[in-house]
Amino acid sequence: MNFLEERIMKDGQVREGDILKVDSFLNHQVDIALLEQIGDAFYEHFKDKNITRVLTVESSGIAIAYPVARRFGVPAVFAKKARSMNLDGDLYTSIVHSYTYNVDNVVTLSKQYLHADDCVLIVDDFMANGKAVQGLLDICRQAGASVAGIGIAIEKGFQNGGRLLREAGVDLYSLAIVDSMDADGTIIFREH
Amino acid sequence: MNFLEERIMKDGQVREGDILKVDSFLNHQVDIALLEQIGDAFYEHFKDKNITRVLTVESSGIAIAYPVARRFGVPAVFAKKARSMNLDGDLYTSIVHSYTYNVDNVVTLSKQYLHADDCVLIVDDFMANGKAVQGLLDICRQAGASVAGIGIAIEKGFQNGGRLLREAGVDLYSLAIVDSMDADGTIIFREH
Repeated sequence: MNFLEERIMKDGQVREGDILKVDSFLNHQVDIALLEQIGDAFYEHFKDKNITRVLTVESSGIAIAYPVARRFGVPAVFAKKARSMNLDGDLYTSIVHSYTYNVDNVVTLSKQYLHADDCVLIVDDFMANGKAVQGLLDICRQAGASVAGIGIAIEKGFQNGGRLLREAGVDLYSLAIVDSMDADGTIIFREH
Repeated sequence: MNFLEERIMKDGQVREGDILKVDSFLNHQVDIALLEQIGDAFYEHFKDKNITRVLTVESSGIAIAYPVARRFGVPAVFAKKARSMNLDGDLYTSIVHSYTYNVDNVVTLSKQYLHADDCVLIVDDFMANGKAVQGLLDICRQAGASVAGIGIAIEKGFQNGGRLLREAGVDLYSLAIVDSMDADGTIIFREH
C-alpha cells in the first residue's frame, strides 16, 4: 500500500451508499503534509509533460491543486460551480451532474485563464462516475487546450468513470483505487 | 505599497457595485508565488501565537489557508457553505448572509475538527462587511476555541466589517485595505 492507501485504511470511514468519508485529512480538515505528498506524486508522474496549468473544480479540488501547481511552478485554476456575479460574461460552461447532491451544476471557467496553447493537468480529490472530470475535459476542448492527463487522489474503481477515461486513452493517474468497500470497514484497493 | 497592493494595482479591476475583481491571481486563477508570499506574511504576523488550526470557509479561502497552514505546520480546516450529505450530524452551524450572491448560507463545521483547546487563525481572501468572518468566529465560540486573530488578503475598508472587529479588540491583519475605488481604476489603499 502507498501512503494514501495507508491513510485511508487508518482514518477513512465507510458509510451507507458507497460513501468513503475522508473528511479528517482530505476535504474538510486538510492534512497539509499528506497533500504535499500527493503533490509530489502527481509531479513525479507528469513532470515530463510540459504542464502550463493545473485545473480543478471548487471546492475540495483546490487543496489538491495548490501543491501540484507549486511543484510545476504554474498557476492553479479552479472552475466554479455556479455562475458568479463577479465573473465576466466571457465564460466556458459545462453542465455536470452531482450524484452526491443530486443536482445539475453549471461549471464555469473564465476564457481568460485557459488557452489553446495550454497543456493542462486536471486534478481532483475524488472520482466516481467521472462527471466532474468530464466537465473539465469539456471545458479544455472548448478552449482548444491539450490535456496531459488527470491526477485523482481517490478513485472509486467500482464505478465506471475511470474505466471510460482509460479506454479513451487518457493518462489517468489515481493514487488510490477503491475496488470495493463495506460498511464493516473492509476496503479493497486495486493492485498497482 | 506592499507586494499585494502592487499586484492589485497591476492586475485588479474595479467593477460597478464596489466589486474588485482579482480573479487573475487570487480566486479563480491562483498565482501560487503570490499566495506563498501571503502565507509568509500571515506567518510572520502570527507566529508567536501558538496557532493549532487555520480556519477558513470554502471555496476561495482554501487557497489562502493552504500556505498559511503549511508555514505553521498545522491542519487547515474549511467550513462548508451548505450541509453536505457526506457530513455527519454533529456539526457547528452559523448563518451567514452573502451580499455578493444575496443569499443566506449555512456555514457548517464538523465538531471533530475544532476543539476547546484549539488556538485558531482565521483567514480569508476578502472581507467587506465581515459576515463570513463573523460566522467563523461564531463557530469558534461554539467550540470554545480561542481565536488568535484574523488574516485577510484584501479588506474593503469602506465597509464596516474591519472597523467592528478592531473595535472589539480582534487582531485583524489585512494585507491590503482598500479605502476607496472608482470604476476609472483609481484605488486608494490605507496607509500601513
